[in-house]
Amino acid sequence: MTITRKKITIIGAGFTGATAALMIVQQELGDVVLLDIPQLENPTRGKALDMQEALPVLGFDARIKGTSNYEDARDSDLVILTAGIARKPGMSRDDLVNTNAGIVRSVCEQIKQVAPESTVLVLSNPVDAMTYAAYRTLGFPKNRVIGQSGVLDTARYCAFIAEELNVSVEDVRGFVLGGHGDDMVPLVRYSSVGGIPIETLIVKERIAEIVQRTRTGGGEIVNLLGNGSAYYAPAASLAQMAEAILKDKKRVLPVIALLDGEYGYQDLFLGVPAVLGGSGIERIFELDLTDEEKSALDVSADSVRSVISIVAAGLPA
Amino acid sequence: MTITRKKITIIGAGFTGATAALMIVQQELGDVVLLDIPQLENPTRGKALDMQEALPVLGFDARIKGTSNYEDARDSDLVILTAGIARKPGMSRDDLVNTNAGIVRSVCEQIKQVAPESTVLVLSNPVDAMTYAAYRTLGFPKNRVIGQSGVLDTARYCAFIAEELNVSVEDVRGFVLGGHGDDMVPLVRYSSVGGIPIETLIVKERIAEIVQRTRTGGGEIVNLLGNGSAYYAPAASLAQMAEAILKDKKRVLPVIALLDGEYGYQDLFLGVPAVLGGSGIERIFELDLTDEEKSALDVSADSVRSVISIVAAGLPA
Amino acid sequence: MTITRKKITIIGAGFTGATAALMIVQQELGDVVLLDIPQLENPTRGKALDMQEALPVLGFDARIKGTSNYEDARDSDLVILTAGIARKPGMSRDDLVNTNAGIVRSVCEQIKQVAPESTVLVLSNPVDAMTYAAYRTLGFPKNRVIGQSGVLDTARYCAFIAEELNVSVEDVRGFVLGGHGDDMVPLVRYSSVGGIPIETLIVKERIAEIVQRTRTGGGEIVNLLGNGSAYYAPAASLAQMAEAILKDKKRVLPVIALLDGEYGYQDLFLGVPAVLGGSGIERIFELDLTDEEKSALDVSADSVRSVISIVAAGLPA
Amino acid sequence: MTITRKKITIIGAGFTGATAALMIVQQELGDVVLLDIPQLENPTRGKALDMQEALPVLGFDARIKGTSNYEDARDSDLVILTAGIARKPGMSRDDLVNTNAGIVRSVCEQIKQVAPESTVLVLSNPVDAMTYAAYRTLGFPKNRVIGQSGVLDTARYCAFIAEELNVSVEDVRGFVLGGHGDDMVPLVRYSSVGGIPIETLIVKERIAEIVQRTRTGGGEIVNLLGNGSAYYAPAASLAQMAEAILKDKKRVLPVIALLDGEYGYQDLFLGVPAVLGGSGIERIFELDLTDEEKSALDVSADSVRSVISIVAAGLPA
Repeated sequence: MTITRKKITIIGAGFTGATAALMIVQQELGDVVLLDIPQLENPTRGKALDMQEALPVLGFDARIKGTSNYEDARDSDLVILTAGIARKPGMSRDDLVNTNAGIVRSVCEQIKQVAPESTVLVLSNPVDAMTYAAYRTLGFPKNRVIGQSGVLDTARYCAFIAEELNVSVEDVRGFVLGGHGDDMVPLVRYSSVGGIPIETLIVKERIAEIVQRTRTGGGEIVNLLGNGSAYYAPAASLAQMAEAILKDKKRVLPVIALLDGEYGYQDLFLGVPAVLGGSGIERIFELDLTDEEKSALDVSADSVRSVISIVAAGLPA
Repeated sequence: MTITRKKITIIGAGFTGATAALMIVQQELGDVVLLDIPQLENPTRGKALDMQEALPVLGFDARIKGTSNYEDARDSDLVILTAGIARKPGMSRDDLVNTNAGIVRSVCEQIKQVAPESTVLVLSNPVDAMTYAAYRTLGFPKNRVIGQSGVLDTARYCAFIAEELNVSVEDVRGFVLGGHGDDMVPLVRYSSVGGIPIETLIVKERIAEIVQRTRTGGGEIVNLLGNGSAYYAPAASLAQMAEAILKDKKRVLPVIALLDGEYGYQDLFLGVPAVLGGSGIERIFELDLTDEEKSALDVSADSVRSVISIVAAGLPA
Repeated sequence: MTITRKKITIIGAGFTGATAALMIVQQELGDVVLLDIPQLENPTRGKALDMQEALPVLGFDARIKGTSNYEDARDSDLVILTAGIARKPGMSRDDLVNTNAGIVRSVCEQIKQVAPESTVLVLSNPVDAMTYAAYRTLGFPKNRVIGQSGVLDTARYCAFIAEELNVSVEDVRGFVLGGHGDDMVPLVRYSSVGGIPIETLIVKERIAEIVQRTRTGGGEIVNLLGNGSAYYAPAASLAQMAEAILKDKKRVLPVIALLDGEYGYQDLFLGVPAVLGGSGIERIFELDLTDEEKSALDVSADSVRSVISIVAAGLPA
Repeated sequence: MTITRKKITIIGAGFTGATAALMIVQQELGDVVLLDIPQLENPTRGKALDMQEALPVLGFDARIKGTSNYEDARDSDLVILTAGIARKPGMSRDDLVNTNAGIVRSVCEQIKQVAPESTVLVLSNPVDAMTYAAYRTLGFPKNRVIGQSGVLDTARYCAFIAEELNVSVEDVRGFVLGGHGDDMVPLVRYSSVGGIPIETLIVKERIAEIVQRTRTGGGEIVNLLGNGSAYYAPAASLAQMAEAILKDKKRVLPVIALLDGEYGYQDLFLGVPAVLGGSGIERIFELDLTDEEKSALDVSADSVRSVISIVAAGLPA
């Protein structure tokens, strides 16, 4: 029996897509196809080639191909969607949603043809709604269509806590539910350092500041950069989820999953803790929430639902 | 300014010492001196050479020296004590304690001379008392004399929980206080999977079984092996603590530390959560315990104190 | 499509087998089955459990199972044979060969049943002949039955050169052909440091000493240990070959391969440079040899052939 | 004795500088200061923060600080210079050289004050001349001022050979002397795959094509990207050299070193094979060259000398 490398296709060769490609080959998870639109084929090939040329120094084996041809994505094990435009000044939220949903649909029509057995990870923005658009277009089982938001939110939260206490990031554990950014529902009582609840280590007001900084963490980077948005931490988040799936690690991570009754929601993509392994989402953990937490989650769910409804309106029935 | 590699000396080239040496060079933490008694000099050199010959394949740079000469340990940054005999049939506990305390004292007299600036990690058995013996002999500041037990106990506990729930070990977080093995005080309420308390995921009775299996985890391995005791997990625990110190990672780990009022104890070496970094023990976390937990810790403390008293009786005043 | 972890079975849970298991899980290459005879089932389970308990600290996910039941090896992707006895005082070479060939045959009869699609790596001694015995018993295609000797010989050779010149092992490249140990044919002109031929860096006499030390490298460890033989470098060599196959890395390594005309030999297992990847041996490199090198290789081939003939005589036609 | 993390300052927070920062923290080599001009302070801080937020996911500990203040670089162990402008249309070579030399001088005046014990790695373009400018301004011993070009050229060359033969990059070894890009002098006879000279594996014409592609490797990426130049492979090259120094690995790598009679050159910075360790350049290897190779190296040396003379003219005597 011949053993072959896994194949990962990343749609969108912007900073996040390219950095995710780098982090994936740095783990030797498989060969990578970096795919963007025909107008960007040359830069996409350039990034892939530059990365390929780094591998002898880094000591990793992988083929990295830059392309605009979906045929190169054939039989991918994992597809990562980072495509989509950023919101421009004067653009309404609905316009953004509709534009990106159109992109995601168009991409997924192709993925469906060339990689029907793949698992699909979505980062495109707004991510809950784009995961829904991907799911509806692909027609894949729900365990194989997964959105990223909580890993990134948690990463930021943990970075802030590690800095606050001057301890290793390896020992900080955070936890968020619900939507991305403003809508996130951090479960502070489930956050710990070396197992010790942070509520016993950091005063309440300071925790509140850290939570607030986390909520607006994406905006903080946007403001500093002046032009563009975060890509290192988003790419690392995608790479971690990719590793969990491709190595069947059964990580317990917050993911955007299609809920089918969990937490009392139906037909909604929302950030929940789950087991991520070789079958994609293998189990969703349903937590006992306090009334306050459940209310916050309801707010988050409503917000996601309203964006999904925009997408749904634009989809064929 | 010339940058030189760190130097780590491991006293005792048995299975645990040798495996710890391997794991330390696999992290490229520095050069390793593997030191045992003159009668075992040749086998010690043999193990070091065999390991040295593995490095071209593993791709790590380090010098590994097998020796019985303390001069080779000069200016070590870290010294790890694994020396000591195992309890033999018919041997009283006091005899074991006295024999190993004698070995630890003799070793530490030498370390004090050749590596007065080193941090010292103790694994020798019974570990709380041997850490005390090392501390008294070395005369080093308390932050630089550290015993290992909780990292190993926690590792076993986490392995059992990961198996129970079929999830990644990367997401399981356990927590123990107090003495090693039978005396350990697991704080179940501080144990979690992906941040989710295990009490909400595993039924009480099953948790109790896992806790009990952890307490007797060392014995389980001894019984299976028939001849000898565990060394892979103990060595990994030492290597993790070594990494925390040598890379100044500020890990939050359970360590055996000299208590000076913390948890209401004085002049006692006991397992507590601490920040482990470039200065050794940089901070001890004092947790609010329930009455039940405090009682269990008192039992553990009494047990440790009685063994320490045997050692103390044998030391010069 | 569900992604599952690779499965590696290691036959023989002695020091080499167990250390190889450790190094394989440290690379997260897959789940490991450590298999030994029923009389050693408990120690085998003990070693596996101890290693399993180290993983939460090391941060790797894998299931390690100790067993004596071949059913546990079912559907393995890779099988590693370390089983066999060491030569005892007074034992003839033929007796050793026959005893170990019997063990290898008996193991391979079972492997053939439970893991007919596996690739098989052989370390059992004398390795050229045991690889032949395995090949004949398994009936697998020749690319999937591979012996280890050159990776280990080269590792020792490179370790000595790195020490001689005080340079990183990452930049030393050695090269051996032919049988293991005494019979090895080092191609000194193909040995380099950072690409620079060692013949321009080390005087001839010193190179000759290094070559001679490499030839007797196994014996040097045996003499030092006093009891037992090398296992760190042999295990690392197995782990490297396992990685090359399981990650389809297409490493260029010296392996023991069935020759079918290459180098002028037929039906002979001999150490040659090859591409090792997902299909096992994917290509054999045939080098232009000097007359001297060819003569040395002929000697090595004769020596291997004579041992193989002992094995062949004991096999069913 | 307290162990502290190493400190690495990267001057220039463009793509190469930022990517090098990422790769350095991914190896846990130490804390990183990313420094750029005051006008770019916010984007620099944004990149540093984004990277910091990736670390909890990646599992590495480091502090990454974005700044424009040289005070933050105080007591750095290693300083990496990536600052400088790219050649613009219509700009003469002399103008480019003078502009970048001015930048390098200004940066080095500051480094000299705040990090007088540091080792300095130079990537700024044209690199041989900028290394000279740095050396003259810093006044550091020659072993501590090092330019990067050969690691990158070799990486590209090895990537092409690995692709040509479909083998692991871990087994390809290339070798270049002299200046960067067009001026590089590849020693084809010192290039090998698994120790086997590539001249026996690839036909002469194809090797010539690969050499030519390597020479123009930077331009190939520039042409594909359309806007900007390569940064993944350059950053990886810097990170590898940083690792060699900070871990005192004694790697044998091609580096730009001040020659003091080696290869018959005086007072010239040129790419030569060297041992790179904790003292910077610890040894230069002087190879026997063929007449053809020596001629090519002379051409390269002349070319470098002429650029250096432009820089020298602009420096205080």
